Amino acid sequence: ISSINIIVESSDMKLYHNVPEDYKLVILEDSDIVSLKASTVFGILRGLETLGQLLEFGWMDTSSSPMPINTGDGASGGIFCIRDIPLFISDAPSYPYRGLMIDTARHYLPLNLILDNLDVMEMNKMNVLHWHISDSQSFPYATSSFPELATKGAYHPKRIYTVKDVQTVIRAAYLRGIRVIPEIDLPGHTNAIAKSHPEVMSHCPNPSEPINPTVPETYNFVETIYKDLNDVFPDDYIHVGGDEVELSEKCWLNDTSIVEWMKLHNMNKTVELYEYFETRLLKIVANMHKIPIVWQEVFNLNLTIPPNTIIDVWKGFDTYTIQNATNKNFQVILSGCWYLDHLDCSWQKFYECDPRNFTGNTDLMIGGHASMWGEHVDSSNFISRVWPRASAAAERLWLGGNTNTTTSPAAKSIADRIHQFRCRMVLQGFAAGP
Amino acid sequence: ISSINIIVESSDMKLYHNVPEDYKLVILEDSDIVSLKASTVFGILRGLETLGQLLEFGWMDTSSSPMPINTGDGASGGIFCIRDIPLFISDAPSYPYRGLMIDTARHYLPLNLILDNLDVMEMNKMNVLHWHISDSQSFPYATSSFPELATKGAYHPKRIYTVKDVQTVIRAAYLRGIRVIPEIDLPGHTNAIAKSHPEVMSHCPNPSEPINPTVPETYNFVETIYKDLNDVFPDDYIHVGGDEVELSEKCWLNDTSIVEWMKLHNMNKTVELYEYFETRLLKIVANMHKIPIVWQEVFNLNLTIPPNTIIDVWKGFDTYTIQNATNKNFQVILSGCWYLDHLDCSWQKFYECDPRNFTGNTDLMIGGHASMWGEHVDSSNFISRVWPRASAAAERLWLGGNTNTTTSPAAKSIADRIHQFRCRMVLQGFAAGP
Repeated sequence: ISSINIIVESSDMKLYHNVPEDYKLVILEDSDIVSLKASTVFGILRGLETLGQLLEFGWMDTSSSPMPINTGDGASGGIFCIRDIPLFISDAPSYPYRGLMIDTARHYLPLNLILDNLDVMEMNKMNVLHWHISDSQSFPYATSSFPELATKGAYHPKRIYTVKDVQTVIRAAYLRGIRVIPEIDLPGHTNAIAKSHPEVMSHCPNPSEPINPTVPETYNFVETIYKDLNDVFPDDYIHVGGDEVELSEKCWLNDTSIVEWMKLHNMNKTVELYEYFETRLLKIVANMHKIPIVWQEVFNLNLTIPPNTIIDVWKGFDTYTIQNATNKNFQVILSGCWYLDHLDCSWQKFYECDPRNFTGNTDLMIGGHASMWGEHVDSSNFISRVWPRASAAAERLWLGGNTNTTTSPAAKSIADRIHQFRCRMVLQGFAAGP
Repeated sequence: ISSINIIVESSDMKLYHNVPEDYKLVILEDSDIVSLKASTVFGILRGLETLGQLLEFGWMDTSSSPMPINTGDGASGGIFCIRDIPLFISDAPSYPYRGLMIDTARHYLPLNLILDNLDVMEMNKMNVLHWHISDSQSFPYATSSFPELATKGAYHPKRIYTVKDVQTVIRAAYLRGIRVIPEIDLPGHTNAIAKSHPEVMSHCPNPSEPINPTVPETYNFVETIYKDLNDVFPDDYIHVGGDEVELSEKCWLNDTSIVEWMKLHNMNKTVELYEYFETRLLKIVANMHKIPIVWQEVFNLNLTIPPNTIIDVWKGFDTYTIQNATNKNFQVILSGCWYLDHLDCSWQKFYECDPRNFTGNTDLMIGGHASMWGEHVDSSNFISRVWPRASAAAERLWLGGNTNTTTSPAAKSIADRIHQFRCRMVLQGFAAGP
């Protein structure tokens, strides 16, 4: 190969949901020019990754070749070769949303690790980094309006992400065709906010989660933080959280001012308060012209939500919720199949999950993400725990369809390919696990 | 502290089973001399580790101290301090055998990783490295008589341990008070031997495991390899394997020459053949004046074994076997509580296991080992998978006894201490997992 002939059909460089990632790669026997054609630059990235995977390094059999090739780096006779040419590859993803969720609240993940991980995501043709920034344990992001959220709410004042850090991640992700979708989980999973903004917390009896939906301070806070997010994260989508909100008597009903407010507003149940909060939050999001993604409880509890809300189904492969949501015409992403913290789930199990395997309009299933919840992960083991298990989810989301190992050629060869791909990741310097 | 006053009572530097590791550490309020006294140098090592753990790094509160201490490395005011002095520590291990098993056959572990891991074992006051060298998948050790075992049986001719490598490990282990006990698993788990020594394998129909107990080549082979082990490994103990031997019709009864031989020797069952093999193997071991350790099947199947054989109970906390074995006066080590490849077993579960919690002579329970079987571990994740979970086993074996979190102060504080200890390992450069 002497050169690669690259043709990009569109000069639009914007990265967005559903951006075309298709590509055509042609390698002929009698030509030393590889041809790569794609609708967008992002398709070119995917095609180049495929080309890289096709290259195999080996040594010439010098007994049959009178002139061993000297690569110039001392490895005499080492060559790269591509098997099975001519190759005519026409490829495109099955799902437009192929993500990995990282959690920087349970353990802080160093910036360099997040950047390294973007390289691995690109190798896996993933296109969404879902960044679960904050949680009960810590709030490591110093937003421009509220740096104290991090200086007081992070594990350590040095274990924070500045706006510049976040912009570095977004830029690096963009260059790899990866969108960054932030999540500041609200109203639950928020104890770390209490350290700097106790005024937005419920008093049950101490300032604690879920945050207090009845005081104006809360909405000033939410509006400001969402404005900060909007300023920094260019993506059209935003994950608004909303999972595991404590609705029992443990919190809101323990705060007399909240109980008073509920009476005044004729609310009998905490779920109404939850709905009130989500409604106001989703209005803020709508005013920013962002498309909200919610954890499935927001849908399961039947809250009124805008029709463009995307439901993130995380409670396993919950076909009941998927069917209900798609029946009501909501778009759905699936994450429940790919919980990387479930150590008993092998990549085989990940691979078997077919998100479209439900009764209903499968067009509304737009993809999904593997989730690396951070309770037991930090820089010591993040890469080896995520990869190559998440690779199985990535291939499922790229290829779609048939997981049957007797009828699908891809499924038949997945064990060998995962093995080789793991080696490829290790050779590129990323310690994917065995 | 200006100096440490070290007193060693015995000048004997030999490391052996039951070597005294007790120590006394005294730190007074009005003296800048720490006093450390032990029966042997190995007790001194344990005491120094404790002293290191007592040191906390922090910064002087300069407002109350007019003269901040300059450490000379730019960290102005940084100091090490020890809490709660005066301290009078008198410590000794509860079990003499506190091990970690590594498996270099399922994945090759680089020499440097094994050496690093010895440092971590020392931090954990472990004193036995049980080295499961070979298995069905590979044979990475080039013994002096049979280097071809590795050159043909390793994953790659470069992924082998030379005699010098092994001596490096033994020497480094000795300097940390750690004995190295090798295991060449026989007669099962031996397919990798077929690549270089098919003459010792059964033909069922291809040369494969278990090895053939009926031909003289087998005993020449075993004798030579044990002589090689004896030359290199100085420890009095040797692990002879013996687990999971295929006794069904799948192998030995499929080899007509073996069936003929059994008839000739009036053997009806393959277990008799298994016993015949173990008897000859254990005789070789006895002639070398080594004490054999066997996996529990050798005992469970009621084979005749020398009374000094140690039973390694690996099938969970199998009190039935432990009771039977100790009733017959065999010494026992327990490994079934601490399977590091069982990812659903947290360190909490490891910590709860009390090896002496059975009916019988608990003096015969001499310790145990955590086991890191290698199917899913290599240098990418070994340290973070083993530690700090194995630390829980290490403390249990050092402290012994009471695992009750309400009555045992150690059990009460274990969560905090594991957390701190994990940080200590990370700070020393070993990526223990969170």
